[in-house]
Amino acid sequence: MSAAPRHPDDPRDPVPIPDPLAAAEELASGFAANAAERERQGGTAWAERRRIRDSGLLLLRVPQGYGGIGADWPTTMLAIRTIARADSSLAHIFAWHHFEVITPELIGTPAQADRYYRGTAECSWFWGSAFNPQDRRLTASRRPGGLILNGPKSFCTGARGSDMLLVGAVEGDRPGTLAIAVPTARPGVVVNDDWEAMGQRQSDSGSISLTDVDASDDEVLAHVGPAPTLRQALRGSISQLMLANVFVGIAEGALADARGYTRAETRPWPGSGVARAADEPAIVHHYGEMWVHLRAAACLADEAAGRLEEAWERLGSLGPELVTPVAVAVNAAKVMATQVGLDVTTRTFEVMGARAATGHYNFDRYWRNLRTLTLHDPVEMKMRSIGRWYLDSQPPAPDVNT
Amino acid sequence: MSAAPRHPDDPRDPVPIPDPLAAAEELASGFAANAAERERQGGTAWAERRRIRDSGLLLLRVPQGYGGIGADWPTTMLAIRTIARADSSLAHIFAWHHFEVITPELIGTPAQADRYYRGTAECSWFWGSAFNPQDRRLTASRRPGGLILNGPKSFCTGARGSDMLLVGAVEGDRPGTLAIAVPTARPGVVVNDDWEAMGQRQSDSGSISLTDVDASDDEVLAHVGPAPTLRQALRGSISQLMLANVFVGIAEGALADARGYTRAETRPWPGSGVARAADEPAIVHHYGEMWVHLRAAACLADEAAGRLEEAWERLGSLGPELVTPVAVAVNAAKVMATQVGLDVTTRTFEVMGARAATGHYNFDRYWRNLRTLTLHDPVEMKMRSIGRWYLDSQPPAPDVNT
Amino acid sequence: MSAAPRHPDDPRDPVPIPDPLAAAEELASGFAANAAERERQGGTAWAERRRIRDSGLLLLRVPQGYGGIGADWPTTMLAIRTIARADSSLAHIFAWHHFEVITPELIGTPAQADRYYRGTAECSWFWGSAFNPQDRRLTASRRPGGLILNGPKSFCTGARGSDMLLVGAVEGDRPGTLAIAVPTARPGVVVNDDWEAMGQRQSDSGSISLTDVDASDDEVLAHVGPAPTLRQALRGSISQLMLANVFVGIAEGALADARGYTRAETRPWPGSGVARAADEPAIVHHYGEMWVHLRAAACLADEAAGRLEEAWERLGSLGPELVTPVAVAVNAAKVMATQVGLDVTTRTFEVMGARAATGHYNFDRYWRNLRTLTLHDPVEMKMRSIGRWYLDSQPPAPDVNT
Amino acid sequence: MSAAPRHPDDPRDPVPIPDPLAAAEELASGFAANAAERERQGGTAWAERRRIRDSGLLLLRVPQGYGGIGADWPTTMLAIRTIARADSSLAHIFAWHHFEVITPELIGTPAQADRYYRGTAECSWFWGSAFNPQDRRLTASRRPGGLILNGPKSFCTGARGSDMLLVGAVEGDRPGTLAIAVPTARPGVVVNDDWEAMGQRQSDSGSISLTDVDASDDEVLAHVGPAPTLRQALRGSISQLMLANVFVGIAEGALADARGYTRAETRPWPGSGVARAADEPAIVHHYGEMWVHLRAAACLADEAAGRLEEAWERLGSLGPELVTPVAVAVNAAKVMATQVGLDVTTRTFEVMGARAATGHYNFDRYWRNLRTLTLHDPVEMKMRSIGRWYLDSQPPAPDVNT
Repeated sequence: MSAAPRHPDDPRDPVPIPDPLAAAEELASGFAANAAERERQGGTAWAERRRIRDSGLLLLRVPQGYGGIGADWPTTMLAIRTIARADSSLAHIFAWHHFEVITPELIGTPAQADRYYRGTAECSWFWGSAFNPQDRRLTASRRPGGLILNGPKSFCTGARGSDMLLVGAVEGDRPGTLAIAVPTARPGVVVNDDWEAMGQRQSDSGSISLTDVDASDDEVLAHVGPAPTLRQALRGSISQLMLANVFVGIAEGALADARGYTRAETRPWPGSGVARAADEPAIVHHYGEMWVHLRAAACLADEAAGRLEEAWERLGSLGPELVTPVAVAVNAAKVMATQVGLDVTTRTFEVMGARAATGHYNFDRYWRNLRTLTLHDPVEMKMRSIGRWYLDSQPPAPDVNT
Repeated sequence: MSAAPRHPDDPRDPVPIPDPLAAAEELASGFAANAAERERQGGTAWAERRRIRDSGLLLLRVPQGYGGIGADWPTTMLAIRTIARADSSLAHIFAWHHFEVITPELIGTPAQADRYYRGTAECSWFWGSAFNPQDRRLTASRRPGGLILNGPKSFCTGARGSDMLLVGAVEGDRPGTLAIAVPTARPGVVVNDDWEAMGQRQSDSGSISLTDVDASDDEVLAHVGPAPTLRQALRGSISQLMLANVFVGIAEGALADARGYTRAETRPWPGSGVARAADEPAIVHHYGEMWVHLRAAACLADEAAGRLEEAWERLGSLGPELVTPVAVAVNAAKVMATQVGLDVTTRTFEVMGARAATGHYNFDRYWRNLRTLTLHDPVEMKMRSIGRWYLDSQPPAPDVNT
Repeated sequence: MSAAPRHPDDPRDPVPIPDPLAAAEELASGFAANAAERERQGGTAWAERRRIRDSGLLLLRVPQGYGGIGADWPTTMLAIRTIARADSSLAHIFAWHHFEVITPELIGTPAQADRYYRGTAECSWFWGSAFNPQDRRLTASRRPGGLILNGPKSFCTGARGSDMLLVGAVEGDRPGTLAIAVPTARPGVVVNDDWEAMGQRQSDSGSISLTDVDASDDEVLAHVGPAPTLRQALRGSISQLMLANVFVGIAEGALADARGYTRAETRPWPGSGVARAADEPAIVHHYGEMWVHLRAAACLADEAAGRLEEAWERLGSLGPELVTPVAVAVNAAKVMATQVGLDVTTRTFEVMGARAATGHYNFDRYWRNLRTLTLHDPVEMKMRSIGRWYLDSQPPAPDVNT
Repeated sequence: MSAAPRHPDDPRDPVPIPDPLAAAEELASGFAANAAERERQGGTAWAERRRIRDSGLLLLRVPQGYGGIGADWPTTMLAIRTIARADSSLAHIFAWHHFEVITPELIGTPAQADRYYRGTAECSWFWGSAFNPQDRRLTASRRPGGLILNGPKSFCTGARGSDMLLVGAVEGDRPGTLAIAVPTARPGVVVNDDWEAMGQRQSDSGSISLTDVDASDDEVLAHVGPAPTLRQALRGSISQLMLANVFVGIAEGALADARGYTRAETRPWPGSGVARAADEPAIVHHYGEMWVHLRAAACLADEAAGRLEEAWERLGSLGPELVTPVAVAVNAAKVMATQVGLDVTTRTFEVMGARAATGHYNFDRYWRNLRTLTLHDPVEMKMRSIGRWYLDSQPPAPDVNT
């Protein structure tokens, strides 16, 4: 990988990170300071992307043998959740980076795993995603020893500012999608600044356009077809669990913000007869109930991370008996986090009061971010996949959309 | 009233309006065309305020004897709801205009009722609100034959662009608030352009500042004290029911927009096996359930309007037996509209899908508008007032905050 | 109809009823006295059936020209709801009586309408139902001028103690069901005492068995086939609205019972700091919220009754433009009443406390009755029928199962 | 302890139990066979109590040094949940036994711990509860070296059929309650057969009456006063977590029963177009959603058991930093299990259909059992205690009512 583009920001000798969660907390704390402001602006959070890079956490999932942190899945997911509490756009970018970092190991060849782990470790690559198999406009045509890629791709989270992209390409009439690792700087790759949504406004999830982009055969990690392999199915569960952790983080952030506001700003309701808003029984009730539900969602996400770690530890002998429990647990976490999160990001306003709608707080971003991200794929289908599994022992349909 | 300021826009000979609801529909239809766009911009919707004025609907509540339309309460509330479907900021301004138009008759003297109905009819006054009794910074000091008003007032819906204001002023240590009709153009009145909230962004709900503003005694409509009169309590119910109708209208608008989107844009969910998204059972279920709940909220609002009309027809002999049922019905309508509306404005996204989060649709404004406006006063206290009435036959505490 | 069996209980000269709702209230008040006790026993409430007969309310839907009360649909539905507050089993029997009383007019010939109204008026017939088209075991075979009926039929509400039955019979391979009016006393008719369910235990909803029962052609009111007529569809809506009113009545009864208990028996929660349970904010909240939701359900039921009356008044020129709004409104009422009722009959316990579970109160019967009756047909299908109507303007599928 | 009454059923040499959860499963499986039938009968399940005794599981919480099983809290709680799936009355009795078995160690002296563990191990005592501090009619008067106990006590779960009772007695004007271990066979103790409730009908939760019952000072384990010790507070959390596990078990049992019924009995809904009810999307949806919610409740209960085990392992140095997290986690588990359980035990009927209301299934017992047991103390107060802890870092108020 000596030819790999070396990023100028690359911290050549990454300081080892003894406590990745503490590092994530520190990042989050910094992001929180201007998250409300940045969210209104939208666009790419260049300074914050740089901070992520500087933190060393890009190597969270790179095995220690390559100089990485080698964190396990529970730690990885908690790090994502921690960042999401402060800034869910950056958490999404952060998550998708790790998602693509592990992709070569998961669905590529050992040589590819080796090459890309090494490159990520040496060059501190920031990975972005351009896989989205539902958008079938980006095509691959064969050339000797490789492919020529052409066309646009939408919903490319983290593409802007990335060093490497996981690109999904359609080859002729062949169903499914090729997963190809492409350096973002490669000639012909254009990353557009066209992300414009009601939420996740700094998630750099716009489109890319490829024009005669060359890819060698050994950059093709896999073909993800209509009948995905168990490893491909597991990969889908990983991205879904990352999303679930972003959801939980958003709701935790909203609740914590509301707590601070209620204690500092909210006036007792007229006629309530209490000295502090925080003594009003209904307000106390809402905090209690929201905390319980959110804790339940977090527990399901934690349980799923544990199941994922179990499967990951036995990647070499992956069977349905390992993959199905992960998929069920991940789907459950996602359903719960969606339901609880939408409630919390709406209900917190009732425990804050009318002035919490003042624009500069930008408290509505929690709901907007969550509502945007929870539409990624229909939660109803997750519920049904669990229902079918419970009723008829059918394994959940694989998620291969990311 | 010859001295009354004549508005240059005044349509001198208002064309009689045979069908005010049709006129409201027409207004709404025009507002809908650029509501998403204007909402993002915020500020004052000058052109749309002008359209309201031109429509003749400013005279909706002016008795026919004065040349007004003389609409009853059910019609008035439906007109508000109709406009709210398209634009809840303008609906709020529209509602608050009618609210202040009837205030002299409701809590002032017959002479004041006569004077201000006549002025509104002749000059097409657009009324705004600066009453907000919770903000006690605007004070009145006595001068012979009148008062001198000084100080700021926040949450002044419809103040910008208004011809007349209902001002609330605190006199010395006296509890309660004086309700004073003041021409917006009077020297010393400054209407600030400082409304900035996460929703209702064109509701012109910023602050005003008064400096040595003169008001004569006959402009003082009433003193609204800690023990409001039945008429003052009824006035509170009127504003609450206006809000409930804005809530219902917002949710109806969101649902109708979603319907159009689902039919035209939403793709069938992967794996759902249906040809159209509109054939997906869960999507059909959501539309059915949302429609039922929303119809229930609308029914409660209609029932409350009917009760209000009954009380209004017997204003001369108003007793608790008329005012209490209005207050209960209005509180019920507000509780239901709040709960259903928050659900609908969140859930509609699930029947539209991921691309409905694209920024230019601005579909999130429904939730933001509703969430902002439903914080106006705590819905929990409405629930409890009904609970106490049901349990212990206590009449609801009057709403005199608007 | 001189040959019609004259019931010995028949009040020969029924006293005219000036106020049928007052009469229903009086009936309900009597039923309430031992409803808890009777519900535990199950079986047929002979004394209470007799009281219904004696009240004169069996003639509620018989036109005044026949000596009946000639009540309209809103009054009829309120009478059913009133009785359901006290005893939903008897309300079910009461409702189904009226349902069958109007059946000859609705789907039979004018001569049949005349004959059966007259018979009901003269003989105070108590009608029961044995139509249930989903049970296809009861068959009709042709004989000259009539039919021979054989077989069992399940879910025959009100059959025990009835004078007349609406029997549903299958003729050979012909799809659909014949609706036949058969005197319960006719030879070969056996009404079994075999109703045994977790709720509606005195609704006399067991089975009947027919052995070579003769029916003349002029007793056959209609053939209800796969493509029901508009009148047959309207009939389905009537039964569904009757059920919705029973649901609302059950919940209203549960709430009223809880109110009395909370006021008289419930102790303040430990640590709540209030003198009376009825002053506990959360308890007050629950009563307020339950009342609002229940009022909303009642409003939808009332709206549907109004729509039904509109259609009924134009029976002679019935078109889809009249039948569809009834079906939509009825389905909406049923959805709402189901959801609210299940919540209320569960939640009331929280405002009563642990001792309300004491067996002799039998407060759980509200939930058991409602849960049993709401399973009658799947509420989900009602929601979807509304969803399809809202999305695609499809008229709801007719309900012809009763 | 040679004077201790030796129960005739005492299995003198208990076979060691290698897998207590397997033993609990086996018990549950046996109980399930006639649970529906026994529930209708009510009264004491003598045969099943005997099976519990024979299983050896009475020694679940007796330390291994005494010959007991020495299970940890997670195992104990799972055993309770397992039995509750089949029979929540027996699970309640089973739980309360273990609750009283550990009481001497937790709030008594080391000598008392030793005495009662030994007695339970040697004699296979079945413990029952008669502590209920809210019923203050049972009094203690001093005699030299001991107390004389007189009076009744209500809600004595597991008293019938017990060998030992934990009795709560009030001493004169002293606030709080004495906790006294009294053999059920002691002269003057009468256990009444008077439990009659709408649920938990075989939980033997009736009253006892004591007449001049002698208790020696060394049978008095503790005085539980208005300011309970940390150990007493922990004891309260233990009973609450046992209840939460019974709740979860009830809901799991209801869901599993429904699953079997839907697969075997439920017919496709008319018009649904599917071959099996289990293929109907809405039915699949309900199973999925109920499973997710129930899994979340189970996770919270498991988390609380883990926290409890952590505190238990450091009983010798118990501080608020150990007790508060247990109380918070337990309250959260109870809130969630209550909410989810009430929904599941109601909603399962919708996925089974009308015939599931047939009496002999007795499916309504799940709701009746849960509704009865969830009233034990107000769940609202649990929510508020969590709310106060989250908002203001207040430790939850101790639960000392059991």
